[in-house]
Amino acid sequence: MDTNWSVRLDTEARTLGDRTATRLRELIRDGVFAPGARLPAEPELARRLGVSRPTLRAAVTELIADLLLVRRRGVGTFVSAVPRSTHGLERLVGTGHGIALLGRRPGTTGLRVRHVGADASIAAQLHVAPGDPLVRISRTRTADEVPVVHCAEWIPADLLPEPTALDAFGAADSLHDRLAALGLPLRQAVARLVPVLPDADLRDRLDLASDAPVLLLEQRHFPATRTDRVALFSRHWYDSGRIDLQVVRRG
Amino acid sequence: MDTNWSVRLDTEARTLGDRTATRLRELIRDGVFAPGARLPAEPELARRLGVSRPTLRAAVTELIADLLLVRRRGVGTFVSAVPRSTHGLERLVGTGHGIALLGRRPGTTGLRVRHVGADASIAAQLHVAPGDPLVRISRTRTADEVPVVHCAEWIPADLLPEPTALDAFGAADSLHDRLAALGLPLRQAVARLVPVLPDADLRDRLDLASDAPVLLLEQRHFPATRTDRVALFSRHWYDSGRIDLQVVRRG
Repeated sequence: MDTNWSVRLDTEARTLGDRTATRLRELIRDGVFAPGARLPAEPELARRLGVSRPTLRAAVTELIADLLLVRRRGVGTFVSAVPRSTHGLERLVGTGHGIALLGRRPGTTGLRVRHVGADASIAAQLHVAPGDPLVRISRTRTADEVPVVHCAEWIPADLLPEPTALDAFGAADSLHDRLAALGLPLRQAVARLVPVLPDADLRDRLDLASDAPVLLLEQRHFPATRTDRVALFSRHWYDSGRIDLQVVRRG
Repeated sequence: MDTNWSVRLDTEARTLGDRTATRLRELIRDGVFAPGARLPAEPELARRLGVSRPTLRAAVTELIADLLLVRRRGVGTFVSAVPRSTHGLERLVGTGHGIALLGRRPGTTGLRVRHVGADASIAAQLHVAPGDPLVRISRTRTADEVPVVHCAEWIPADLLPEPTALDAFGAADSLHDRLAALGLPLRQAVARLVPVLPDADLRDRLDLASDAPVLLLEQRHFPATRTDRVALFSRHWYDSGRIDLQVVRRG
């Protein structure tokens, strides 16, 4: 346990009890109190937080009710081992948003927007005819300036208000937000997971030092507004050595 | 579209309309009517199903209400592109159950149950001390007799009613069911996805013909009954060429 954490109570919160609970949540979220760890004894914790023991006790009771803390009679109070705020690929968010949720700064390099005809494999994924007009967007996404995933996206042009609607798509734009603004909010995606060896082009784009395998996500995205169509097919190649890929599974 | 489908109405269902709806669901589920495809014209479909047009219309209306079918005015009735019953790794089920959900017959080879001390890396995942007693179960799971995933599982012995509680674990047993019976029903897991190259041992166990990468899932499982503990850590190596691995992502 890192013992150097300091007291930085949020002065916006209403009561000292609330602020104490907020601070405990932060210490758990930031891993100062790790999952499964025992909290310091009440007198020490109260002293460190600069609050009275009754105030601390109220905050701890609140976090127990939220299942963030667990009291074991005669042993102590422990941080729940269940990562309650954790999420992973099961939550559909844009790639940049997902990078930000990991606490890293998303960026984009090598953006290219083109008009293409569907080849047979992409047509099958999008349920369109081969040769049908598509918008293809490709770019490499970075986290804190480090390339972590190369993305290729295909959108049927007939689903757009006009075929040129995405021509001005920029490096700072979110494709999810842009599609929602164009009447195609994405509701659900099915991602197929395929471990693959990187080819020379991908090694170059992701600046890979080795031939270590990468994880390809082949994703069909379904819009809330047109349940009869696939709005977006994408292939994302992740360097799992540089970004954690996880799925939270619920029974 | 496969045009060779035949009429096999389920005679257990209550009314002809119900049976017709059930049959349509099956044809969609089995992919005879593919996602996004247009249904045959009403007279032809009624003739094929051996029902009257009013009966067919009632069944179609039911499936539209269920969002399985979409009517596009002046164009026809289409199969929804959204795979509504689809699920993937985001749903926590035992590996054998997951294989069965894909319509394949699960099996087990090479089962081994041992008592071991936690090495440092496993101890960190389970939040126990290095050397703490664990039960280690390893086995290879098959789908229709073909090996698809090799599984290694570690369970802290102190969470079991007695350390020997899993000694009689058998090839036909479900570890999820067994742990639930022992008071450790698994509620949630966090799976980390890591593409890896198979070593010689794994190539042998999964009968891999090539050095193609496999997908390793490193999973921490949390029980419903003891939220302060990790009940099970597992490493599952999937041959993604032999079994589809997918995640359904929801916004």
